[in-house]
Formats: sequence, C-alpha cells, structure tokens
Amino acid sequence: MTIYLHDIPLPEAKSRLDEALKATNRAGVLGIEEITLDEHALGRVLAKPIWAILSSPHYHASAMDGYAVRSESTVTASPSRPVELRISTEANYVDTGDPLPNWADAVIPIENVESVREMASSGDELVTPNIIRIRAAVTPWSHVRPLGEDIVATQLVIPAGHTLRPVDIGAIAASGHASLHVARKPRIAIIPTGSELVPVGQSVKAGDIIEYNSISLAAQVIGWGAEATRYPITVDDFDQICVRVQEAAQHHDLILLNAGSSAGSEDFSARVVEKLGELLVHGVAVRPGHPVILGMIGEKPEQIPIIGVPGYPVSAILTGEIFIEPLIARWLGRSAYVPLTIKAKLTRKVTSPAGDDDYMRLAVGRVGEQIVAAPLSRGAGVISSLVRADGITILPRGSQGLPAGSEVEVNLYRHPDEIEHTIFAIGSHDITIDILAQYLALKNRRLTSANVGSMGGLVALSRGECHLAGSHLLDPESGEYNLKYVNQILPDMPVKIIVLVGRQQGLMVAKGNPKKILSLRDLSRSEVSYVNRQSGAGTRVLLDYHLRLLAIPTVSIKGYQQEEYTHLAVAAAIASGRADCGLGIAAAAQALDLDFIPLYQERYDLIIPRRFYYDKLLEPLISILSDPDFKKTVASLPGYNTDQMGLEIL
Amino acid sequence: MTIYLHDIPLPEAKSRLDEALKATNRAGVLGIEEITLDEHALGRVLAKPIWAILSSPHYHASAMDGYAVRSESTVTASPSRPVELRISTEANYVDTGDPLPNWADAVIPIENVESVREMASSGDELVTPNIIRIRAAVTPWSHVRPLGEDIVATQLVIPAGHTLRPVDIGAIAASGHASLHVARKPRIAIIPTGSELVPVGQSVKAGDIIEYNSISLAAQVIGWGAEATRYPITVDDFDQICVRVQEAAQHHDLILLNAGSSAGSEDFSARVVEKLGELLVHGVAVRPGHPVILGMIGEKPEQIPIIGVPGYPVSAILTGEIFIEPLIARWLGRSAYVPLTIKAKLTRKVTSPAGDDDYMRLAVGRVGEQIVAAPLSRGAGVISSLVRADGITILPRGSQGLPAGSEVEVNLYRHPDEIEHTIFAIGSHDITIDILAQYLALKNRRLTSANVGSMGGLVALSRGECHLAGSHLLDPESGEYNLKYVNQILPDMPVKIIVLVGRQQGLMVAKGNPKKILSLRDLSRSEVSYVNRQSGAGTRVLLDYHLRLLAIPTVSIKGYQQEEYTHLAVAAAIASGRADCGLGIAAAAQALDLDFIPLYQERYDLIIPRRFYYDKLLEPLISILSDPDFKKTVASLPGYNTDQMGLEIL
Repeated sequence: MTIYLHDIPLPEAKSRLDEALKATNRAGVLGIEEITLDEHALGRVLAKPIWAILSSPHYHASAMDGYAVRSESTVTASPSRPVELRISTEANYVDTGDPLPNWADAVIPIENVESVREMASSGDELVTPNIIRIRAAVTPWSHVRPLGEDIVATQLVIPAGHTLRPVDIGAIAASGHASLHVARKPRIAIIPTGSELVPVGQSVKAGDIIEYNSISLAAQVIGWGAEATRYPITVDDFDQICVRVQEAAQHHDLILLNAGSSAGSEDFSARVVEKLGELLVHGVAVRPGHPVILGMIGEKPEQIPIIGVPGYPVSAILTGEIFIEPLIARWLGRSAYVPLTIKAKLTRKVTSPAGDDDYMRLAVGRVGEQIVAAPLSRGAGVISSLVRADGITILPRGSQGLPAGSEVEVNLYRHPDEIEHTIFAIGSHDITIDILAQYLALKNRRLTSANVGSMGGLVALSRGECHLAGSHLLDPESGEYNLKYVNQILPDMPVKIIVLVGRQQGLMVAKGNPKKILSLRDLSRSEVSYVNRQSGAGTRVLLDYHLRLLAIPTVSIKGYQQEEYTHLAVAAAIASGRADCGLGIAAAAQALDLDFIPLYQERYDLIIPRRFYYDKLLEPLISILSDPDFKKTVASLPGYNTDQMGLEIL
Repeated sequence: MTIYLHDIPLPEAKSRLDEALKATNRAGVLGIEEITLDEHALGRVLAKPIWAILSSPHYHASAMDGYAVRSESTVTASPSRPVELRISTEANYVDTGDPLPNWADAVIPIENVESVREMASSGDELVTPNIIRIRAAVTPWSHVRPLGEDIVATQLVIPAGHTLRPVDIGAIAASGHASLHVARKPRIAIIPTGSELVPVGQSVKAGDIIEYNSISLAAQVIGWGAEATRYPITVDDFDQICVRVQEAAQHHDLILLNAGSSAGSEDFSARVVEKLGELLVHGVAVRPGHPVILGMIGEKPEQIPIIGVPGYPVSAILTGEIFIEPLIARWLGRSAYVPLTIKAKLTRKVTSPAGDDDYMRLAVGRVGEQIVAAPLSRGAGVISSLVRADGITILPRGSQGLPAGSEVEVNLYRHPDEIEHTIFAIGSHDITIDILAQYLALKNRRLTSANVGSMGGLVALSRGECHLAGSHLLDPESGEYNLKYVNQILPDMPVKIIVLVGRQQGLMVAKGNPKKILSLRDLSRSEVSYVNRQSGAGTRVLLDYHLRLLAIPTVSIKGYQQEEYTHLAVAAAIASGRADCGLGIAAAAQALDLDFIPLYQERYDLIIPRRFYYDKLLEPLISILSDPDFKKTVASLPGYNTDQMGLEIL
C-alpha cells in the first residue's frame, strides 16, 4: 500500500477537521459537569452563565463600626448644637457588617460620637453610657452598604465561556452559589510509537532516541485545560499500533499518535487511521511540522479525532499550538489562545519555502530604541531553539523570504517585560557566557547570546543589533587584543572594552591523542583531519596568524573548510570522530572528555557601547564581574584565568 | 489593650517584612526538591540550572530516509554521468534518525536515488537491488544532523529561576536528565475568622456573611505556584484564634489571617500577632485594603511570616496581589509577576485620598481610535467591580485625583486582545443587556455596560466614550422615543437607532401591595415612600412627564431625592423595605419577588454611531438581534415584547 503525503494549505486542513467534527457533534463543548465552588474551580471554564441567586450584601449592612441611626433625627446637629440620641431606641451600636435595625437608615462612625452616661433616678451616673451625642448631621444611607450594592439577585454575574479566576470564584460565592457548571475536561491520549524510542532515564546508544515528545505534548495539553494520558512506547508494528489506538479511542476524546506521520517505510500512522476510520489530511503546508495527519477513528457518528503528530520535537510542539490548542479551546467553550504580538526588525536576511507557512523562531530584545529579532535555528530537531525563542513569526505561503532590516510581527512566547529585561549578546562564544547567563537569571535579566564569532559581534554592534559582543581578536602586528578591530569596525561608537577572562587556546584531540598531534605543524599531515571555526571567529584569526608565522599553507590542511560556530561544536566533531583535531579552549575539550594540547594564552573581552554600559539593563552584568563567587566559578574551569576580570581596557 | 492602626507607606511596609524575612533566612527559595522529569514539572520553577549531560543528537543522525554515503565518492556525479555506489560498502540505507555508519558523512534522500539490480554471476538479475545510481554530488554533512546539532553536552540548557514550559521539559529530557531540581512549593495556611461568617452553601440570615475570601485567597495562592490549606472558620475569640494560628504555624511557611485586621472591638488579629510573635506593620497606606497586618510568628530564628488580610473581598484580593504574590515569587526563586500595561483615557473625573496609594478599578475598551477607561465602583466590598475590571490604575500617594480625559497607565487584568473584543455600552440599564452579554460571550465579544441612564449614554456617545447606548427617552411632545434627544445631543453624529425591546413600566411594590398603591397619585400620600431613578434616566423622564400631566408636585413625594442607578437597585430598595415603591420594569420586580402595577408601555432602543454599526466588532451584536433563540429568551421575561426587535428607526 502506498501512502501519499500531499501538503494542503493550513486553512483547508482545519476546515476538513471542522466538518468532520460537526458531523459527529464534537464541534463544541463535550460535556458539562457540576463542581463544588472552591479553589479547585480555578482555571475551569464556565459552561452555564452565573445569574445571582442572592444579592450581596443580602441585607443593609453597616460599613463602619458605629451607631445606626435615623438620618432625619440628626439633621439639626452642629458643632455648637449637638444632638443627643438614646441608645437602643434612637441609636444602636453596630460593627462593620452588622445588619441595620429596621428603623435605621444611616451609620455614624464610632469616632464621631461622644457617649454620655445619664444620671440614674438614684442620682448616680449609670455604669454604661446610654446616650450618644453627635455634632454633625448624616445623610441617608451614609456608611451603609445597601442590599444589592455589590450584586443584585437575578443579575448576570459571569457569562458562560469564561475561564475562572480567583475573583470570579469569590463573586460566584457572593451571589449565593455553592456549585457551578463547567465544561468537562477533554481527555487526550498520547501514544508514542517508534522502535528507536527509549524512555527518559534509560541509557542510550547510537540510534536510540529519547522519547520526550509525549511529555511535552502532555504538558501542553494540561496547560490548555485538558487531561492527558501518556501511553508507553509502542514499537513500529502496524497491528500493535492499531490495537493501542483502538484501546485509547474507548476512553478519550482525541488521540495524538506520535510519530510515524511521514511517508517512510516505517511510518504507519496514515495506514492506521485509514484502517480504523477516515484519513482527512496527510500533510499540511507548514514548516516545521508539515507531515501532520488529521483523521477520525471509529464508526460514524461515534468517531473521535486523531492527530498524527510529526516526530521532530519542534514540529510536535508547533502541531500542538496550531491544531490541538484551538481544539481544546472549542471543547471547553472558551476562546482560542491569542498570542501577544510585537513588531521587530529582522537582524538578517531569511529565505523561506514559498509553498508553506513558515514558522520562524526568533530571539527578540530591545536594543536602544529598536526591537530586534534574530532568527534562530530553523531545524525541526533543534528543540533548544524553541527554548531560546522569544517568539515566532510566520512567513506566509507565497513569501520567499525577507531582507535584513524588515519589520516582522512576532507572536511572543514571553511576557513583554522579559523582552525588556533581555541582554542581547552577539559575538564569540565562551562557556563563561553561559555561566554569566545563569548568574544574570537570578538578577532578573535574561542573557540571549548568538554565536557568530568575534568579528560578527563587532559588526552586529555597528548595526545596533546587540548590547554587547564577546571578542578575542588578536592583532598580529601589536599582539594586542580587540582594540584595533574596534577602531576599524566601530570608529564612531564610544565603547568600553572590559576583560572577561584570560583563557588558554590549544588543540583538542581524541582521548589518548592517537594521532600524536603536538603542534600546528601536524595539521598538514595527510592522515590528520582538522575541524575549523568560521572565518571572523577569534580562534580562526589566531589559527591563521600562527599558520602564517609557521608558513603552513591552509590548502595543506584537510578539513580547513569544515567550519563550526562554537568551541563545543568543534569538540563534538572531534569526539564523534568526524575530525582529529581543532583549535579551541580547554573547557570545551574537558566537557567532551577530549585531550588538550595548550598552545597560546589569549584574552576574551566584552565590547560594550557606552550608552549601554551605563544603562540600568546592564547594571547587574557589570556588577557580576566583580562578584567573588562568579570569579571563583569561572576560575575553577580548566585553562581559565580571572586575574584581569573586570579590568577596563578602554 | 489598645490596638493602634497607623497607615505607613507601602514601600516601608514591604521593607519591614523584608528585613524580618532576612533575619530568619526566609528571604529566598525555601527549599529544593528533586522531581521526576514528566509533564507534572509544568509550571515548577527550576532551583538549579540545567547543564546538558548528553548531546542532542548524541550521534550523527540521518535527517532523511535515504542512503548514507561518503560525500567524496559523489563529487563527479552529474545528470549525464551518474555515479554508482555499491550498497553496504559505499551506500547504506538509513531511516530518518538512524545513526550514520562510521565511514559516511552525508545522506542522499531516497527520492534522489535510482536503485539498480546487478547481474548475478549466473546471468540472472539479483532479486534485491545492490547498487544505487545518483546523478548529483552531495556536500559533506548534507541531510545529516551532526552530534550536538541541538544541544552540546555541558552547555547551559535552562538557567535556574525559570518557570518550566512544555518545551523546556522536552529540552531537559533531550539533554539527558531524568529528574530535575525545583523550588519546593511554599505552604500557605488560610485561616478565616469571624463569628458572622457562614460557609458557602449554608442558608443565610441578615448579618451572616458568606465566607469566600479563603477560597479566593487559596485560588490566588495556587495560581501563583504555592500550596494552600484552608482552615475552617474560627469565631471571634482571641484564644481560639491563637490556638489555630499556632497549630498552622507548625506546618506552613506563611499564615493568612482573614479578617480582624482592623481596629474594631472584635478585631483580634493584631493582638494575636503581638502575643505569638512580632507585629511589624499594622496599616498600610493603600486603598482599598489599608488595614493590613504584617508580622512574624514564633521565636527567632524560626519565625514565619503572618499577614492579617482585611475582610472586604476587594481588599483581600488586592492584599494578595500586593503582598502575597511577590513573597511566593521570591520563595520560588522566580521574578514577581509584572502586569501588562496600556495607556487609556479616563472617562470621568476621579478624586483620591492624598495619603494613600489608591488602586482604582477600571473598565477598559477601545472606542474608535482611543482606549478609554471608565472608573468602576470604589467600594472595598464590591467584588463584582473586580470581576468586571479590565485593569487597575494606581493613583499614587500625594495625588488628590485626576480630571476627566487624563491619560492613565492601566495594569491589565485581561489579555489586550480581550480589550480589543470589548463592546462598551454606556446608558440605560435593561436586563436584556445582561442576556445580550451572555450571547455575545459565546461569540468572542465582551459586553461591558456602565449604567448611567439614557441621557448619560447619549452624552457618553457624544464624547466618543462608548460604542452604543441603550436609551428609552420619551419625547413628551411627540410621544416618540429617542429621536429628538439624539438630534439634540448628537447633532453631527450619524447614528442608527435600532429597537431592542418593548417593555412595560410600572410601579414595583412589596409583595401583596400592603400600602395599596395603584397609580402615581399614591406617591404623594404621606405614609408612602418612593425610590427614584437618577436624573437623565429614561424611567425618570417618564415619571416626571406623567407627574406633570397629573400635576403632582415632586416635593410632595417622600424619597423623590433617593436615587438609584438601575431597575434592580430600585427593586432591591423596595424588597428591603427601604422604600414602598418605585417606577421600573416588570422583570426587575419579578426578580426580587415584588408585585408590579403595569402603567405604561415603552420602547428601549440601541443608539449606535454608524461608524461602529458597520464595524466588525459589533457584527455579532447586530446578528444576535435577529437570532430567534435570543428573541425567545427575551420574550419569556414578564412584560417584554420583542415584536419590533431589530427594527431600524433611523
């Protein structure tokens, strides 16, 4: 049997599902349940409106501690001509919240009252005061909360479809209800399939994939107000998957089948849906996440929907946002989630497949007056890009991309306030930057770093696209770091150059150094392969400088063209056997259990425009540079020297 | 013992609590717990940063279904000169996610491959193809997800202090963790006190107050990430409250004592705190909610904080937002909540006590080009105002108020998108408007109505402060409704006048009509008291018109000055015995179980500026007017006539 994966536009896919849901009476709230009015009603969605059955207050209540009186008996009172009222017949003590006597229509606060003890018939003063004296009139209903001041019986308190907040729950109680009707939570089954999957916590070998999509999907679904059942992993076996799906269909409102939704030899999802029901859609023109399946399981009219969720983690999560959240919303009777949006300026050109709605992840921050958006990895497998993403922009079908500097509308993943507290660092990568990010997180700052090498960072600064750049650019003439390049690339920008750290550069090689690599001269040996940093990276400048000194031609180095963007990526290339060696820092070598041949000591600085250096946003960063605890943490990394940390070079 | 309530500024109150928390080591995260990595980690706050212990992918993985090859063996391939590669030694089939063989460095997608069956030595074709033919070269690492493409072991995945989202949980799993360290949830005890309190669900008599503050507080606390224990109601007894507080202190991190925080004769909270620990603050200069108590319970250094939460529901909830949320935030190690803000134009003048930070509730909506903010009830007991509030603005200490038209910064309680979907109705109240609100809620529209009478509504329209006004203003000369007033007040504004409903006006009287009131003539009887609508209300115009016809002087009517703003409020005044009768509509009388003497039939119209009438925002409202279901619901109310509903008068 052949499976065709044919991408259709998103609106068409949604409307096919829509039609199918309508045909099975599953287009609206799935059911209503009555729950007790207590704090657990938080976040539930009202299925019936709340009409008040009791007024609040449900009697005329004193709003103060004082005396309830007839207002008309106070009209002549003045400072010089006080009025005396007899307690119990003309004035009655009330605490706040007490009901007014039938005859009273106002309250005089206790502090405006003088109490008087009348003489008893014996001629002695009475023990308890029995008269009050007042020196000002009160108007009717002053210091009284009249019946229904807050809520009048029969009025609408909260309409159906509203998601309950603490204050709503209070108001429902005030209006005389002890229970309420809410939409039943949709029950969602999540079935992970794949012979290559292993559960979280199990050790992995090459080819094993940790199964965590079901966890992310379950968390999404719970956050959106539904219940999730996570099934154990089912291997790639058509019959076993069928059995699992049929079982789940009996107790759930929606099945998420992950993955097997593509068109490969072990992609069974579409066939499973065709066998057990009806395949509505196979393939939607969205990136990432196009191999989505939409279908219905079971016999009409008892069918329930099934979604074949693609396997790449970014695709899975976007499928949740695009298809599952709106479905849960309608089943709860609430509005679908609408993201906050912000307009931002793209830092670089992007291309896009014209046939798809392209969901592009972005890092977003305010740099001076402008909001900038830096495109992140487009890979469907790169979940870290979604963790780092501050938002997403959609390049619609028909668009082939956008030039740098374009304004895009970003659907935010974070509170705009977080964007305002984001420090944008573009430049060279160093592990110290990660540690700095952690220290900043505890001071209400996010550090977002894009690793484009030292030179790239200076260029980004010149374009006003970041707050600071990490740089370790050696000037071959002077032996000085960064100064010359700053003068060249940022001639008109007043900047500070602050030492972050001194660090050792050297060659990373496999454990035990099997190829006996000892210096740069070994790079031209024919059996040695190298992995390089991208041009513009400080480490690349360092390499090229020393190759020139040693008169080693770059063409003699196998793998010189093979570029990576971080020290850790270089280390990973060596650890995996993709290359034999690469220039980098000791910390990266240690991280991936490589050997390290130290060659040069270099300085890694932060280049910070003065207007940002003195900005409140960067204050915590500057102060962390003199935090002994931070210094100690960095100094404990192999090959790092913090003697000059915080020193102002410029 | 005397309790002094002395309001101090908010920052001082907060800093006193701060100092006390620091002295007892309770200024930061209370504890760390290790939890399993699954969907229940959602919303927890990371207490330790996540550093990757595994790269992702942790091997070189094929990104496509296809053949793993050495890229260098493909360099000569072209459409006319294909290259053939032998399966197993030169090309190996891989599914997406499969590891690459050691010798391979690229993948050719299956669709770019021709498979060839070689001749066996016997001269027959082999059953299985054993050679692939390709017609294009591939570059190294194409269609491969290299080790660490997503996450490199040792890198920072997520910093501490981060509140976990579904995608974060996925990334933590991808980076090799099976558990994680989160901040322990603070445990918060909520102790309701007061002899006047009755639990939700119990019947009430005058003086009883339904205890729901503990529910709202518990829901707040849970929503902010803590655990709540709700204690049963404790009566106003000093010793019993002490026992309860001491008991709760043993198992909790914070005690909320509600209420008794003021300075009345039965307000024990401050004394309880003084006896069991240390009273830090009694009274904070905020409105509503000033009688707040802050203290510490127990012996140093084992003290825990206690907050005396004021009893009025609005005060209680604001105390939660001002004091409790930031405390929970620091105990969880996350940033305190920051509201979204919006700038809006005040629809009317407001006054404010100069000595306090005044938290003013506002209804906010977009009317044409401007965002308007209408101040809601200021009463601390009016929880419905907080339900209706779209946001709050703070009139700071020192401010005595603001004139109408001032721009204020509003801390939003709702998503800005909801504000954009809000229809602002200002004018006369009718219960049909409540029903309309319910129907609109199901069509993604909020109807916010301010009841200021028909005339007030037209004035609000003239100022551009609302989208529509409900009006039933009789022209005594022509007997026509609304037209004349619209021409007078909105001479230059093109509007539509649409009939909402026809309804009966009459006198509401107590059940059984004990005072035998039959017509307006009875209003001047000395033993009859009246409750009036405010001037400008359509019902008031109707009354004054008929009084004039009947030549009844208004001074002869006791209670003519007593004004209420809605039909239901008038009904409530009669139901409570505050007045004997009032002019109003049958539905209001029925709602509060009053008798009704029908007198006049009148028309209630919606006045809608044409620019809003044709706006998408109002589309659902217009269509509801011809919804038979809506018509039926309204027609079923006593005294309502829907024959003309939706008719365009203008």
